[in-house]
Amino acid sequence: MAARATGSPIIDCDVHNRFKDSKMTVLHPYLPRAYQEVVKHWGITLPGVGYLNGGDRGYRADSWPKDGFAGSELALMQEQLLDAYNIEYAILLGQELRPLSTLPDPDYAGALARAYNDYLIEEWLAKDARLKGAMLIATQDVPQAVREIERVGKHPDIVEVLVSNGARMPYGNRYYHPIFEACEALGLPFALHTGSEGTGINGQPSLAGYGAYYIESRQCRPHGYQIHLTSLIFEGVFQRFPKLKVVFIEGGYAWLAPFLWRLDADWKGLRDQTPWVDRPPSEYVWEHVRFTSQPLEEPERPAQLLEVLAWNRAERTYMFASDYPHWDFDSPIDAFPKLPDDLRRRVFSENARELYGFAPRPVAARS
Amino acid sequence: MAARATGSPIIDCDVHNRFKDSKMTVLHPYLPRAYQEVVKHWGITLPGVGYLNGGDRGYRADSWPKDGFAGSELALMQEQLLDAYNIEYAILLGQELRPLSTLPDPDYAGALARAYNDYLIEEWLAKDARLKGAMLIATQDVPQAVREIERVGKHPDIVEVLVSNGARMPYGNRYYHPIFEACEALGLPFALHTGSEGTGINGQPSLAGYGAYYIESRQCRPHGYQIHLTSLIFEGVFQRFPKLKVVFIEGGYAWLAPFLWRLDADWKGLRDQTPWVDRPPSEYVWEHVRFTSQPLEEPERPAQLLEVLAWNRAERTYMFASDYPHWDFDSPIDAFPKLPDDLRRRVFSENARELYGFAPRPVAARS
Repeated sequence: MAARATGSPIIDCDVHNRFKDSKMTVLHPYLPRAYQEVVKHWGITLPGVGYLNGGDRGYRADSWPKDGFAGSELALMQEQLLDAYNIEYAILLGQELRPLSTLPDPDYAGALARAYNDYLIEEWLAKDARLKGAMLIATQDVPQAVREIERVGKHPDIVEVLVSNGARMPYGNRYYHPIFEACEALGLPFALHTGSEGTGINGQPSLAGYGAYYIESRQCRPHGYQIHLTSLIFEGVFQRFPKLKVVFIEGGYAWLAPFLWRLDADWKGLRDQTPWVDRPPSEYVWEHVRFTSQPLEEPERPAQLLEVLAWNRAERTYMFASDYPHWDFDSPIDAFPKLPDDLRRRVFSENARELYGFAPRPVAARS
Repeated sequence: MAARATGSPIIDCDVHNRFKDSKMTVLHPYLPRAYQEVVKHWGITLPGVGYLNGGDRGYRADSWPKDGFAGSELALMQEQLLDAYNIEYAILLGQELRPLSTLPDPDYAGALARAYNDYLIEEWLAKDARLKGAMLIATQDVPQAVREIERVGKHPDIVEVLVSNGARMPYGNRYYHPIFEACEALGLPFALHTGSEGTGINGQPSLAGYGAYYIESRQCRPHGYQIHLTSLIFEGVFQRFPKLKVVFIEGGYAWLAPFLWRLDADWKGLRDQTPWVDRPPSEYVWEHVRFTSQPLEEPERPAQLLEVLAWNRAERTYMFASDYPHWDFDSPIDAFPKLPDDLRRRVFSENARELYGFAPRPVAARS
């Protein structure tokens, strides 16, 4: 496929690399031998809920290689995404193992995280200079997670620490603070991806439990992000870790300004209860928090999206993501209405470049 | 206090009547004798979380009568609200007993609901023609709740059936459908008020459990409403009960349009999974769902609020509420920016008048 012109560089902040088969066979050699024997016998078991995703088992029908799962073959990812859209950088966020923090056993979860991070570096990041990666941690054991950040977080292709939206406690809780200390020390953003809402050792996905259908479960994603964001602000995380950046991936963006109006107003009325929060909550967001675009919200009129982008300070806070190879993939060419050139450049590359410190690369298509 | 001019009639959809003392002594005679003996000895025990509300123990400092709790004295409510703002109708939503559906015992909860409904009619609604009331039900036992709707739902001053946002299951779940059948048969809206998120027999207030501070808990309110709204639509409630109306009280409104953009887009991609939902979700909202205004969202610029009101079809879906006597009370005079006259009339009276079937009343001040 020939590269399609996009008019500005593209950094894609949400791309999913997957294992070829459900046994995740290729991961086994990266595990300690005791776990190798277990997973060969049992498989790698992870909690789930049982909702049915969209598309072809969750993916674009055309993204399944002849042999193996959608997203498992670098050559096809190059053809359909990196070359096709002349992607300057793409951040790989994995897929199957992101729920590892919902496992009951902290040591098994920690071993899976270490194995995945090594596998990611060797089998993906080393093979294409356009690829960067998010490292996983198992949040069941914070000191172990901190050791893992220190072990692989310095690798030049590891660009953030990734956890799931679903969690046992809001991420501002002091339980997690050593993780932020490690992220800040290495200049790694702390990133959240939707998923694990209501699975495994996590609580229910909403204050009313489980909806019946997958579409209902998707509405919980922004809720978790709003809870985590409020918690990070009001537990004083950005005061304690003033260089920390947080990225909310695949949980929407159009909700942000209305949410912050509410939060700022509540803060005005209740600020005496949390006096260390000495600025309106929105100011912490503009400084510390970034959001990815996919799935792009689709207002009734494109002008409404442009208004929302202005209200949300998109020129600082918004980063393009395609979510390749998921069924609700957003094309860098077609998904967005026409943006002003400056804004397009901020959203499609420069906000991510500044956040992750990416050096400019020549982006000639491989084809 | 002399009545203040408002320029249009006012129907206040969220006013809180309370008991004079924490023992709720005045309720005791309305309970069956066996429960009377229990509550005299134990008090009326209800689940809670322990967050500290704002204001003076949750209320306007000036709303505490000389003797008893804020909101417990009709004369003061008349002076500070009904007369002061020339209120045409005010809907009483109670306060202390709204969490009764979070009690473990369905029969005790049901007895409390019946006692409250009788008390409400006799001690409040009979005493001022401006007062209308929401009846409580105990959702732990749906057939019992249905019997209670049939028992008091025909009273001319009972205008809706009220439950809490916090719940064990999303309200679209088929478990609740007989309640909607009863509401529809009597022309009573099904109303939700914020509260009971994460208390008693309900699950946690978010997919990440409990935030540390009260301000965090307030952010869960719209989440519950979004979950319930999605559930009502996708479980087919509005197909099965085409005349049913639902009212979301005190859970925000500025989130609505961005939320529906997302929900409509998700429906487009996933509609084959729920084929009975044969219109975009937003269309069910315009037809069946209403929202109250307090706490009014405060954008950076008033023009943003006017835009949001247009996006949300406020001329059909939005109803004024003061939340008297809570600390974050919205004055009918001062809370809103200037609205176009037509829109103001829809929001401050006509949407509620149509929903509840209120006859126009002369609204001369009593003073």
